Parts: sequence; structure tokens; C-alpha cells
Amino acid sequence: MKHLLVVAHGSRRAASNDEVRSLCQQLEQLDHPFSEIACAFLELAEPSIPEGLQALIANGATEIVVMPYFLSAGRHVTADIPAEIEPVRQQSPQVKISIAPYLGAAEQIGAILLKQAVAGA
Amino acid sequence: MKHLLVVAHGSRRAASNDEVRSLCQQLEQLDHPFSEIACAFLELAEPSIPEGLQALIANGATEIVVMPYFLSAGRHVTADIPAEIEPVRQQSPQVKISIAPYLGAAEQIGAILLKQAVAGA
Repeated sequence: MKHLLVVAHGSRRAASNDEVRSLCQQLEQLDHPFSEIACAFLELAEPSIPEGLQALIANGATEIVVMPYFLSAGRHVTADIPAEIEPVRQQSPQVKISIAPYLGAAEQIGAILLKQAVAGA
Repeated sequence: MKHLLVVAHGSRRAASNDEVRSLCQQLEQLDHPFSEIACAFLELAEPSIPEGLQALIANGATEIVVMPYFLSAGRHVTADIPAEIEPVRQQSPQVKISIAPYLGAAEQIGAILLKQAVAGA
């Protein structure tokens, strides 16, 4: 049972958090190998990363991929997200939790950015 | 002369800002309609948005597309970036400055996220 947890920064603006939740629901419609796709937030919104992981574990996850929904490898990606995950790893050592490369590392990002910029010009 | 300014948040981590600068250089290699592509940062890194806009104007820009390199429509996208642009608009009314939809609004983001998650699993 491999589950996916999309982790976003979280915003004071509720609509922005809802946008992430909505994206995760849309992902479920696409072709993917995960038993379940959920989202969590580093700060300012719920569920937190530990809460999100624990909910997936309660649903039977034996393997969880954490996908940082971030564009650059700042402190949040390199330090804060791993630090949030670590206690859950220790509490549930039977669950394999891995961290995927953050979204901004995807090679298609540049092409999408240009397409979006041209459309908005 | 239509120029593109990619605007990122900016990070305390220099490597993260360099990643954005590097992306903008890579964009130049792709097929695009812009005379010049540059980047700027909302905070924590240079150039600032006004500095970035003024540099493009000094290079002859008559039209500038500002592309928010952000994943969700939080306060930075909805309020802070427009607020940084406004004084430059007033100083240089002959230059048409438009704001493209932020990167996260691109419909391909979900598919890329899943691809990245599967690769990292």
C-alpha cells in the first residue's frame, strides 16, 4: 500500500490552501500508482505533516512518498520537511517514508513557465 | 520589445536563488517570443522587482510580462507582487507591464507532480 502525501507550504489565505487540496483531489483522477493521495502543510494550515502521515498510516500505508510542492530547494525543502517527518519515522519504523524531489526540480518546469508567460502576455 | 521578468520569492539560502537565476538562463535556450528574460525576487535576494523592471526598461523594453514563479495564489501573488510593480508603472507609463498567471495555475502541474512523485518513490 503505497500512498502519496503532497506537502505544500501553507498560507494565511484559505483559498490558497484549498487550491492545494483541490489539486490533490484532481490528482486522484489522473493515472497513478498510489493507493491514496493526500495533502499536508508545513505551516499555517492543516493537516500538519505529522498529522497527514499518521492519517495515511491509519489507512494502512506501508510506504509513503512525500512530495514537496515547492519550487526551490530552500530551507523548507532541505531542512524543515525532513525534520517534520523524522519523529513519525521513529514512531512507525515499519512504514517506509521517502521524500521525492521537490516539484521545481522537474525538468519540464521551464517549458510550462514559458507557456504560461506567453499566454498571459 | 517584449521582455519577461520571472519573479520568485527569494530565499536566505543563496543556492536557492541561484537555482532561479539558472532557470532563467535555461529559458533563454528554449523557444520563446521575448527579447530578454530576467529574474527578480520579492524579498531576501536581488534584484528586487522594481530593480528588475527598471533594468529591462533601461534595455529598451516597451512591454514587460511579469511571471510569478509561485505555486499558489497566496498574498504574495495577489497583493505583494502587484504592489511592487505599481510604482514602476507610474514612473514609466509608456511601458506596458502585465502580470501572467502564476506558475501553479498551469494545468500541467498535476501531471508533472505525479511524474516527479513516481520517480522519487
